[in-house]
Amino acid sequence: MRLHTPICDQLGIDYPIFAAGMGGVTLAPLTAAVSEAGGMGVLGATFFTPDELRQEIAEVQRLTDKPFGVDLLIPNDIPPDVEHVTIPPFPSFLEDLLPLVEGLPIPHPPALTLELAQAQVEVTLDMRVPVLVSALGTPEWLVPECRRVGTQVMSMVGSSRHARKLEELGVDVIIAQGAEAGGHVGTVTTMVLVPQVVDVVNRPVLAAGGIADGRGVAAALMLGAQGAWIGTRFIATEESSTHENHKRKILEAGEHGTVVSRTYTGKPSRILRNAYTERWKGHEHEVLGMPWQRLWVEQLVTPARAAGMVDIANYPTGQVAGRIADLPPAADIVARLVAEAEEALNRT
Amino acid sequence: MRLHTPICDQLGIDYPIFAAGMGGVTLAPLTAAVSEAGGMGVLGATFFTPDELRQEIAEVQRLTDKPFGVDLLIPNDIPPDVEHVTIPPFPSFLEDLLPLVEGLPIPHPPALTLELAQAQVEVTLDMRVPVLVSALGTPEWLVPECRRVGTQVMSMVGSSRHARKLEELGVDVIIAQGAEAGGHVGTVTTMVLVPQVVDVVNRPVLAAGGIADGRGVAAALMLGAQGAWIGTRFIATEESSTHENHKRKILEAGEHGTVVSRTYTGKPSRILRNAYTERWKGHEHEVLGMPWQRLWVEQLVTPARAAGMVDIANYPTGQVAGRIADLPPAADIVARLVAEAEEALNRT
Repeated sequence: MRLHTPICDQLGIDYPIFAAGMGGVTLAPLTAAVSEAGGMGVLGATFFTPDELRQEIAEVQRLTDKPFGVDLLIPNDIPPDVEHVTIPPFPSFLEDLLPLVEGLPIPHPPALTLELAQAQVEVTLDMRVPVLVSALGTPEWLVPECRRVGTQVMSMVGSSRHARKLEELGVDVIIAQGAEAGGHVGTVTTMVLVPQVVDVVNRPVLAAGGIADGRGVAAALMLGAQGAWIGTRFIATEESSTHENHKRKILEAGEHGTVVSRTYTGKPSRILRNAYTERWKGHEHEVLGMPWQRLWVEQLVTPARAAGMVDIANYPTGQVAGRIADLPPAADIVARLVAEAEEALNRT
Repeated sequence: MRLHTPICDQLGIDYPIFAAGMGGVTLAPLTAAVSEAGGMGVLGATFFTPDELRQEIAEVQRLTDKPFGVDLLIPNDIPPDVEHVTIPPFPSFLEDLLPLVEGLPIPHPPALTLELAQAQVEVTLDMRVPVLVSALGTPEWLVPECRRVGTQVMSMVGSSRHARKLEELGVDVIIAQGAEAGGHVGTVTTMVLVPQVVDVVNRPVLAAGGIADGRGVAAALMLGAQGAWIGTRFIATEESSTHENHKRKILEAGEHGTVVSRTYTGKPSRILRNAYTERWKGHEHEVLGMPWQRLWVEQLVTPARAAGMVDIANYPTGQVAGRIADLPPAADIVARLVAEAEEALNRT
């Protein structure tokens, strides 16, 4: 029996395996490699300027003529006016970590504004990217805009209530992401969430969270999903654009190597457990909202991340990190996922 | 294709579906009903005196001649001397809940001692119960004792490190329980934990946590498990011995209707979210160890539980509560799980 579901035909891909759009990770090399291998790579476009995005999409198109996606963070609301707010002083309990980043450059990515997101959408549609993924919010104008040029829209949810809302907005594919996933997460796990979302919407559903091998892909199909949205397993590949230290840290992580914390962004996010997350313990009540928390701790974590300082920086990573032990080419991962899933499906 | 795995032959049952041993829930009626329907019921024997346990086992044997199990909490260490410790005064932030239990009888179950557990094991083996499940600890003497009379031993784990230890102790079947399960839980979810445990032990593995329908059973098999250990779905049945208010509260619960808290036992436990767990928020740092926390809050929660006061009492319940909408006979649940699992397995 082949690993093939209706969504493969809907999107024109061979296997229902998706490399999650992850900012700084799923750039052109990984996106193209996964699509070229028969799955679908999704470019993590967070914080790209429109020009950078255009360049990156062009690079994917140079590397493959297979379908791929672009993942954007589109704020639903008008973002707060960051310029005119007083952010509390840098927390004293983190002060002794500051010497570690002394002298390092502090990158300043563009603020996540609605204007930026609209410009990113425009570039994505102008370049006829087949799939646009909105992982943060799905404003009402998004689906009609995409429909005009034939781009399909996928959106991510962590609850079934949210899934119903996305269906009303006309979203084509819903990604149900369990609490074991990396990055911003809810509390409902993949085993519980996926059948629940499948039951309330009349749309293809992808399962996300906790999937690192073909057994997980096969389990996702049993739960009613049409495919698997996979992040962490693809971080640990040759083509992944994250810092090499992040990849190495995944190989070293045990099953308790990740933790859900609000320390970096203000929202609960599953990240690699490190010296910084340990230091944060007991200070959870001091957390600021989004985007203030990030601005608060920026002088420490932003240069740390750019420098690959895994003991301080924020690396969104799923709980499956504990099960990952190699850094192969992405095409090998796709082939392995397919072979293992087919073996599991045919075993029964 | 039929829902049948090697563990069915190992235990002499038709379907690899297990009703979790839950104190006060899986008593003789539910245990016998699940075994009689072709799965395996497991008696939740927590806090039974040896005489009560003997009576309850005899009742199961009167109701069915199919194999069943007994679930015991066996402390690994010598339990602390409860008599000679000063427990802090009842917490003031809960005081205004006390009038709700005024005048109610305060039941005093026997303390969880090694002596009680040994006597319970003796009764279980004396009555030739086919399966003994140890959900808390597995002392070294347990497996040899059981082996003498042909009783198989199953033990529950929340991490792969612990699973390896159980294999060394000779345990026959390992139950890998994810963080979405009800009651005492770890942090690793079922999707992540099950394949991980399957990979490190050379023993049949059951998947527990997040399974409420046949799609979940089929997913468990894909992950490499040989069967499903199911709690909450069997709480919501006619034969379940829990308070009717608990059953009704499961029907009302949404996907965020449970929460992991240390408030009742001192160890992280997934329970129904209620007025008490909300009141506890912000007081997590005041938690006492096990068994002190239970003794601390006993005057409120013990009578409340006996009286079915779902807003105060401790009801261990899995995250799948949000997906449960009826209270049918247990045999209907078994038949439904089998039909749905076979449908999912044959769909691909």
